[in-house]
Amino acid sequence: MEKFTENLQKLRKWIERKNITAYIVPHADEFQSEYLCDGMDRVYKLTGFKGSAGFAVITQFNALFFTDGRYVLQAKKQESYGYTVIDIAQHPYIAYLLEVLSSGSKIGYDPGLFTLSQITALKKGVESKSIKLVPIEENPVDEICGPVIFPLTELFVHPKSYTGLSSLEKRHAVVKKISADYLLITDPCSIAWLLNIRGRDIPNTPIFLSYAILHKNGHCDVFIKNPVERTSSVSKSLAKVTFYPLEKIKEALESLKGSCISLDPYQAPKKVVNNIVKEDIKKEKNPCLLLKACKNVQEQKGMQLCHRRDGLAMVEFLCWLDKQYLEKKHITEYDAAQKLDSFRKNKDLFLEPSFPTISAAGPNGAIIHYRVAKNSARALKAGDIYLVDSGGQYLDGTTDVTRTILFGRRASEEKKDFYTRVLKGHISIAKQYFPQYTTTGHALDTLARKYLWEVGCDFAHSTGHGVGYFSNVHEAPPSISRKGSDVLQEGMVVSNEPGYYREEAYGIRIESLLLVEKSVKKDFLQFLTLTLVPFDKRLIKKSLLSREELDWVNKYHENILNTFLPILKKNKKEQEVAWLKEATSCF
Amino acid sequence: MEKFTENLQKLRKWIERKNITAYIVPHADEFQSEYLCDGMDRVYKLTGFKGSAGFAVITQFNALFFTDGRYVLQAKKQESYGYTVIDIAQHPYIAYLLEVLSSGSKIGYDPGLFTLSQITALKKGVESKSIKLVPIEENPVDEICGPVIFPLTELFVHPKSYTGLSSLEKRHAVVKKISADYLLITDPCSIAWLLNIRGRDIPNTPIFLSYAILHKNGHCDVFIKNPVERTSSVSKSLAKVTFYPLEKIKEALESLKGSCISLDPYQAPKKVVNNIVKEDIKKEKNPCLLLKACKNVQEQKGMQLCHRRDGLAMVEFLCWLDKQYLEKKHITEYDAAQKLDSFRKNKDLFLEPSFPTISAAGPNGAIIHYRVAKNSARALKAGDIYLVDSGGQYLDGTTDVTRTILFGRRASEEKKDFYTRVLKGHISIAKQYFPQYTTTGHALDTLARKYLWEVGCDFAHSTGHGVGYFSNVHEAPPSISRKGSDVLQEGMVVSNEPGYYREEAYGIRIESLLLVEKSVKKDFLQFLTLTLVPFDKRLIKKSLLSREELDWVNKYHENILNTFLPILKKNKKEQEVAWLKEATSCF
Repeated sequence: MEKFTENLQKLRKWIERKNITAYIVPHADEFQSEYLCDGMDRVYKLTGFKGSAGFAVITQFNALFFTDGRYVLQAKKQESYGYTVIDIAQHPYIAYLLEVLSSGSKIGYDPGLFTLSQITALKKGVESKSIKLVPIEENPVDEICGPVIFPLTELFVHPKSYTGLSSLEKRHAVVKKISADYLLITDPCSIAWLLNIRGRDIPNTPIFLSYAILHKNGHCDVFIKNPVERTSSVSKSLAKVTFYPLEKIKEALESLKGSCISLDPYQAPKKVVNNIVKEDIKKEKNPCLLLKACKNVQEQKGMQLCHRRDGLAMVEFLCWLDKQYLEKKHITEYDAAQKLDSFRKNKDLFLEPSFPTISAAGPNGAIIHYRVAKNSARALKAGDIYLVDSGGQYLDGTTDVTRTILFGRRASEEKKDFYTRVLKGHISIAKQYFPQYTTTGHALDTLARKYLWEVGCDFAHSTGHGVGYFSNVHEAPPSISRKGSDVLQEGMVVSNEPGYYREEAYGIRIESLLLVEKSVKKDFLQFLTLTLVPFDKRLIKKSLLSREELDWVNKYHENILNTFLPILKKNKKEQEVAWLKEATSCF
Repeated sequence: MEKFTENLQKLRKWIERKNITAYIVPHADEFQSEYLCDGMDRVYKLTGFKGSAGFAVITQFNALFFTDGRYVLQAKKQESYGYTVIDIAQHPYIAYLLEVLSSGSKIGYDPGLFTLSQITALKKGVESKSIKLVPIEENPVDEICGPVIFPLTELFVHPKSYTGLSSLEKRHAVVKKISADYLLITDPCSIAWLLNIRGRDIPNTPIFLSYAILHKNGHCDVFIKNPVERTSSVSKSLAKVTFYPLEKIKEALESLKGSCISLDPYQAPKKVVNNIVKEDIKKEKNPCLLLKACKNVQEQKGMQLCHRRDGLAMVEFLCWLDKQYLEKKHITEYDAAQKLDSFRKNKDLFLEPSFPTISAAGPNGAIIHYRVAKNSARALKAGDIYLVDSGGQYLDGTTDVTRTILFGRRASEEKKDFYTRVLKGHISIAKQYFPQYTTTGHALDTLARKYLWEVGCDFAHSTGHGVGYFSNVHEAPPSISRKGSDVLQEGMVVSNEPGYYREEAYGIRIESLLLVEKSVKKDFLQFLTLTLVPFDKRLIKKSLLSREELDWVNKYHENILNTFLPILKKNKKEQEVAWLKEATSCF
């Protein structure tokens, strides 16, 4: 597309005008959202690249596009527009910049799109070559491709019957954790949680783009685009909350001069922080994160309830899928995803999928973040391994489940061997007791990998991430991974998703959500598996499982049968009844 | 003892004279040694406390003695001298100081005894109450109790036939890692390694107390007490090394003004760093640490060889111990330790024990750092579980081994159950393959604890520490523990020592040393167990072991038998031959 080549030329002219050497276009909006809405995806607008990781650095002589392994092939399409695609796993970007830029260079950036920590790290990284960072408030992509389009969805209340705590109760809990006079929150997920308010600004995450200032007395100032038009259905139910136009954050912060303001350097955009004098800043972790991650009793109950409905949708889908095979129907990955989404849509309290459904057959299963499209979807072939990773946003919780299914009758020994090793890792995590107060996600991560390591294999992603409550499906701080340095705590919900991927052949992943709960053993915690979806017994190599592992699988399946059988019988779903009995039958 | 009460009064007068509020006497010498020699143990001289962890904070109204659980009882003896003993596990010391000291207080400290990082952390910890730290170069304990007595042992060469690399080769490797003009080394173990020189300044660690400055060209200036008198047998063999009196470090550093000096803030004493202007300092991890930790081919060979001799000493000892039981001899923990040390002393290339032998019967086994004394030693009783943790310093390596033995015929099911769980953890670590480049000690730690966690139990120490080569038995950076954030690398030697302790009843620990080596699986590492000492089969509950675990034990025992049988037969040690055959017989 000529448009993107033209954009690049225009940006180079702008760089020249600004008298800088290079300019960075990050994959970020003003709220550090994980998923960008189209109107705010400046990388997409400038370069045509659509993906969850990829950013550009442009100089007079270079146009570098950094992305990771998953997207390198996709990004290569842009090379014709003048970009050079670089895999950040192989070339860390700061080291690369040091190579490309001569000493004394000046790198321009939009301070609204970078956090304080990101700028500190970048500054430190390039200082050895006396390279300077130049904040420029006007964004050239907005100038060249048109201004960003803010989503302006209506805000709605998340009722206390689901949240368990009122917004004021949550605010008082947060206030107790801060030693400053004010807390600046720039993370929309935290704000939505704190206020018991939701929005539809972003696909898959029911939040609204916002900043907030929490006062010591519990009062909260919230900054969003067009507040008057969007808050009519929530403002009545909210005590001690004032909405302001987003732009007012600047003067609101300036007016607090002389007070101590707490902010999270890993979240707060540089541009927002610039409105606070240095002496007033207290850098600390956003205290909402941990409070939000530890679900209260009502939320724990909600999580269990929504997983029943979600599990039923999955059972219906898997039964349908087997039927397609038996009836030799032609279905594609796209058809399957549509069908699954339709089963979920019928369920009570469902709002939307919690992320785009990954529906991957055969070799596509090995592409960890595979995204199906109608016109490129692969047809399911007999003997294919089919991987489906999906979830839902429900008023009483968020789900995220992956099952790997044989589309056929018999799988090869190799596939069964790897499926069983992945399952062993999954079980090892699920049934592990661990000491309270000290056990990190890092400490548990190895349990999921051990059986793959034994044969010299591994998987290149985390074992588990935190999951929000009717909120972000990837929630900090819990993480079962090498980076999981936070201690696991009662009430956290984490995923348990080991996998194995053979490039260009197949992918296996088994994912359930776990609730961290007290154990009967003093000072120990344990996991309760929330997800209620059978494993594919056709893929299990029984001889590889120990007696304890077999018992665990049988008990898990029995629980699923007991949960769904009465409902399916009541609804006269005979096919599903038969399928479920078979799928959960004892080993 | 009145002396210690008097010391306290004198110190209070000194505090008054200096116009400060409090003074800290840390458990440290000027080299941050792990083990202090008596002449430099100021805590001992001031308070009479002898232990590896315990320090005092004295004010006009308080005399606080902080120590950890292991030493609280021992330290309580000092309460009669006026001290209050505080368990740091329950009362973190900085928090405690904040409670006790009023705002604006001044804490005095000797900058020679604190590292840069320690002072930074302390400063940050007390700043909220505007408490100031006051460095005072004269040490009041030296004034009150007499000056420290430096050990002045003769230096000796550690020959290249053992070290594998010449000192110059090592120095060139270190120089490559530093970007500064000079490297300041304040860690005597690093200096001994770098120069292939040893000394006997400290018990159990064959080093000499020293600082050093390494030049970019490989030249090394070494600062020790009385260099002329102590270096005659090493100076000839050392190229490009100049010895200076310890006191000269000050002017040596001052003379480098304007050059960039690399130093490790976690090792360098504040007093030494004070001689460098701030702008010249480059703070980085001491590059010797990692190079020293990754043993070269010769060192790996040495480690294997010394473990054969060390294992034979242990076999002789364990055979002797069983005989004492059978012959109903009266022996104490002290007798046993003496006997074991005597078996080691006979072995080639042995210099000294690598730490004081822990010889603990029955309930004493539950005291993790139990130290046996002749007059308080417990007699071994039939049915006792006996724990022995010991090691040797050999010219070709360092050993550290723990075995837990039944002094009797039959153990209770409970003891066998726990012994077997500890053994399962031990085996799990020993036989684990793991990815190169990314696997930390933290990631493996859980494998050792998993089987105890299953029954709600754990052990309150690391699973493993690094081990030096004819050097410190506790060597950074490797650590299999919650704090083990460093990646395990080829050539490292680590201990594998899970345990279980039932207070006032018994203690179990099984420790072998492991060498990290390349695996046949691409990009994977594995462990080679260096230690060659049988486990006590009388304590193993066979039904708790999987087939793989049984195979592993059988193979390990078979290897021990094959290693020692020819030697024992050759030396006509018939009793030992019989004992070893029985001890290593197949399950």
